[in-house]
Amino acid sequence: MHSTEQQIIHSWNKNAGPWIRAVQEEQIESRKLVTNQAIIATILRYRPPTALDLGCGEGWLARQLATHGIRVMGVDAVPALIENANRLGGGEFAVYAYEQIVNGVLNNQFAAVVCNFSLLGKESVDHLIRQIPALLHDGGHLFIQTLHPLMAGGDAPYQDGWRSGSWAGFSAEFSDPAPWYFRTMGTWIKLFRDSKLTLTELLEPLHPNTGKPVSLLLVGTK
Amino acid sequence: MHSTEQQIIHSWNKNAGPWIRAVQEEQIESRKLVTNQAIIATILRYRPPTALDLGCGEGWLARQLATHGIRVMGVDAVPALIENANRLGGGEFAVYAYEQIVNGVLNNQFAAVVCNFSLLGKESVDHLIRQIPALLHDGGHLFIQTLHPLMAGGDAPYQDGWRSGSWAGFSAEFSDPAPWYFRTMGTWIKLFRDSKLTLTELLEPLHPNTGKPVSLLLVGTK
Repeated sequence: MHSTEQQIIHSWNKNAGPWIRAVQEEQIESRKLVTNQAIIATILRYRPPTALDLGCGEGWLARQLATHGIRVMGVDAVPALIENANRLGGGEFAVYAYEQIVNGVLNNQFAAVVCNFSLLGKESVDHLIRQIPALLHDGGHLFIQTLHPLMAGGDAPYQDGWRSGSWAGFSAEFSDPAPWYFRTMGTWIKLFRDSKLTLTELLEPLHPNTGKPVSLLLVGTK
Repeated sequence: MHSTEQQIIHSWNKNAGPWIRAVQEEQIESRKLVTNQAIIATILRYRPPTALDLGCGEGWLARQLATHGIRVMGVDAVPALIENANRLGGGEFAVYAYEQIVNGVLNNQFAAVVCNFSLLGKESVDHLIRQIPALLHDGGHLFIQTLHPLMAGGDAPYQDGWRSGSWAGFSAEFSDPAPWYFRTMGTWIKLFRDSKLTLTELLEPLHPNTGKPVSLLLVGTK
């Protein structure tokens, strides 16, 4: 694994405790106001009976989907997050790195695969997306929510590349932010095409105050 | 026809002369630096033997494609522009409004349909895009280049709607700018889906100085 990819895992292991509190106390304004509801509402429109939550974190989304009758499996590379998910229930959870998913550790297929702000690396993500069709039933759907490329890019040139991480806006308990891999809108679309998934929807949930997109939400169909 | 749609046609009839000079003297920096080459290079990659240029204007793109052996038909609602296109040659040109195209005035099918900065209205464009599959051979491609929604939106809320036009940056010969209909990225993608065209590519040509996207270039496949 590339060392930058390892930094991402290291950072999440280190920040698992503060992250669980941030999510469960709804400290992250954009999630509370916009993006949590956006991913839930979008998935529910497709009425999948089963879902795989890749990078499920502490499990909030799995728990939400479970209340709507969806059978959810959640995986995450960070043991402390999966421990929390297991404790609160709502699905079946397992500690797996994306590399293990790519190598076929899961034998199941699902009606939906969800990646909610969980695609942070470069090769790890490129490989993961190409594996998604193997995890979907025919006609199944991939849901990706991620930072909006035109909003998240800041002053840097608009091109793919590693960007330094930051916990700006988070509590002082957070430390060691990891780099993340920036992708343009065009590159996200190309990832779908390379994975033979048809892009079914491209949504741009708006911030109620600024009227600008907060995230990019892509739906692909096998 | 909606009166705002009529204003668009009125404005182009009024500004045809200055527009022909602006294009032929390469007065428009973003076209010269970025977008002319972007649309040509993208179309050529698909090697279409024939192309329909919808809103062809004074005909520069048809002439360029013709030099690469593509048989081009160009249509535009503005007689003065088509007169110029016919005079300079490179293709077959005709004065048709989008409404006439939608009503099936063309009996031909093409390997490519091109709309280069020529989709300015609301209903006229919604109807036109839905007609595109009828104008394409099976496996044929639609190429749309348009203002990049995240760049062109300015401070207005990021949502579909009419925006006031402007000739800012153009010579003083221009007058009566027409309103244009702003579409979000998500709405452009939805237009393709509603027309049963598969989105094959989404490109965002960059300005060499700012490093930011100048335009949005979409390729769809029938």
